[in-house]
Amino acid sequence: MADTPLSESAAIAVIREMLSAPAPALEVGVGDDAAVFHFAGGSIILTVDSIYEGIHFTLDTCGLADIGWKAMAASVSDIAAMGGQPLCALMSVAFGAPPTEDEVRALLGGALEMSGSCNCSIIGGDICRSSSGLGVSVTVAGTPHAYGPVLRSGAREGDIIGVTGTLGDSAGGLYVLKSGHPDLRAKFPALVDAHLRPESRIPAGEILASCGASAMEDVSDGLAADLVHICQESDVGCEIYSEAIPLSGELRALANEARCDPLQWALAGGEDYELVFTAPEERFSKALSSLAEREAPATRIGVVAHASKGTRLIAPDGRAESLEGLGYDHFLK
Amino acid sequence: MADTPLSESAAIAVIREMLSAPAPALEVGVGDDAAVFHFAGGSIILTVDSIYEGIHFTLDTCGLADIGWKAMAASVSDIAAMGGQPLCALMSVAFGAPPTEDEVRALLGGALEMSGSCNCSIIGGDICRSSSGLGVSVTVAGTPHAYGPVLRSGAREGDIIGVTGTLGDSAGGLYVLKSGHPDLRAKFPALVDAHLRPESRIPAGEILASCGASAMEDVSDGLAADLVHICQESDVGCEIYSEAIPLSGELRALANEARCDPLQWALAGGEDYELVFTAPEERFSKALSSLAEREAPATRIGVVAHASKGTRLIAPDGRAESLEGLGYDHFLK
Repeated sequence: MADTPLSESAAIAVIREMLSAPAPALEVGVGDDAAVFHFAGGSIILTVDSIYEGIHFTLDTCGLADIGWKAMAASVSDIAAMGGQPLCALMSVAFGAPPTEDEVRALLGGALEMSGSCNCSIIGGDICRSSSGLGVSVTVAGTPHAYGPVLRSGAREGDIIGVTGTLGDSAGGLYVLKSGHPDLRAKFPALVDAHLRPESRIPAGEILASCGASAMEDVSDGLAADLVHICQESDVGCEIYSEAIPLSGELRALANEARCDPLQWALAGGEDYELVFTAPEERFSKALSSLAEREAPATRIGVVAHASKGTRLIAPDGRAESLEGLGYDHFLK
Repeated sequence: MADTPLSESAAIAVIREMLSAPAPALEVGVGDDAAVFHFAGGSIILTVDSIYEGIHFTLDTCGLADIGWKAMAASVSDIAAMGGQPLCALMSVAFGAPPTEDEVRALLGGALEMSGSCNCSIIGGDICRSSSGLGVSVTVAGTPHAYGPVLRSGAREGDIIGVTGTLGDSAGGLYVLKSGHPDLRAKFPALVDAHLRPESRIPAGEILASCGASAMEDVSDGLAADLVHICQESDVGCEIYSEAIPLSGELRALANEARCDPLQWALAGGEDYELVFTAPEERFSKALSSLAEREAPATRIGVVAHASKGTRLIAPDGRAESLEGLGYDHFLK
């Protein structure tokens, strides 16, 4: 009876069956008080990220499998942002109402699809009720690159700033989904996919770490906010050229049709999970070549400046605008 | 202006200041994409537990500091239930509305007080909005005892069943808080404290692991549900004597006054975070002595039986009742 609400123990039985595949280094999996895994020793990266119904997603634009995927991708992306490799994950799910077996299978199935794509095993977690709406919190443990984790604080004046992939696609996809027009959805499939099934940039992060990137972060709150984080942590400023910010053909076409500014989606949309990074000129060029060889193109978008210059977005006509306040802040409207 | 709602970045600045104390083995703390800590190698226990407003607490019975404490205690308790030691924690908080500085300080302050009491450092986490109500999810990483983690699956027929401390106090405390009577609160302070500030049984868990307990779990869903977990995982049954279940004097007095059955609070109340464990007779006696020496008394409550006997609660008149269905299930009413 896959569409009858489950008891907690029945839901755990479904989850346990879905997580029964052997995971490397796993010593104790689902069914005990906690998971136990073996680690040879060294540095461990630990991160948690959460998404909530009504804030990060609504069930009319995202399916449960998409939500499982997105929750996993958001946390895995934090490991990518340090140039690391994910090891294993815990998933904590609060259901607004007792879920059916189909719902549990969809949510966890999406998460497993995403975690499997980057060799990350889901080894445990917890489920409970929330008083309203679905909440998913994913913890990921990983290991840094042999050269050490790439931090936000390492950018130096004169470093070049780059970003992987294209930006704003996720925000464009959300615009399409919110519009509710099936025509629009059929016309812009890559944008919808970027929103519902964001890729992890684990391989790009590893290449950037091995090429000696000086600072790195994932684009989760929009390029503006995330670049401001790097500048604040590194005590530097920056100059970004608006024309250099990589936008996809689909995003430009949608913006044209919707009479929107695609740059705003790139700067403030968030959830792109691309990597914004800095590196001294020579290393930067090497990184761009290495990324291109691995079919993970990146783009030069600006330079790191002295802190006194602030964080500036330069328009084609030379006018400058501060990046601060352009990104997403959960507690501001 | 400690009572003005904060922006996300201002809230993070407060959290960062509060978490600035040096933590052992910490390599990267708050302010980057993820936390990084050093681990010498071996087994790592990883667990997550979440509490939600309206389900696990309401703000009229719990202060924010209590909620921070309880969220941390619930996850640390999973480490205790394996006989392990906590290393570090991540805290993921969803606020129903932008919090004030005082609110952030209260919540995190309670969590820090609890984590400090068991040498667990809070090294990172995330904050975001929820569409309704406060949600706190805590991940804890820890290490098992040198003899290995004590699992739920090791109970054998003939083992003795014991439990630390007294049971039902947290449920009694909740009854007092829900009543809203200040007189009742003044009369039963230990029950209220057991509900708002549950202790971690890390030291008791370690003693039990070193004495060779065969199975262990923390009492989070009520003795009935948690003992059923052990029996299911170990493929055994059990006999528990209702008169042997340890109840505090305050709980008996409250039950008398409220005309409630204190045993129901012990069996189905949950959130006691005591440890229920099994061990062969000789080891069991040794464990009880060791616990008593360390002022962590435990009580013998029954024996492990063959699976065919089921999980039975025996009344003083010899009548038996199944433990199944007596505990808390998040998805059943």
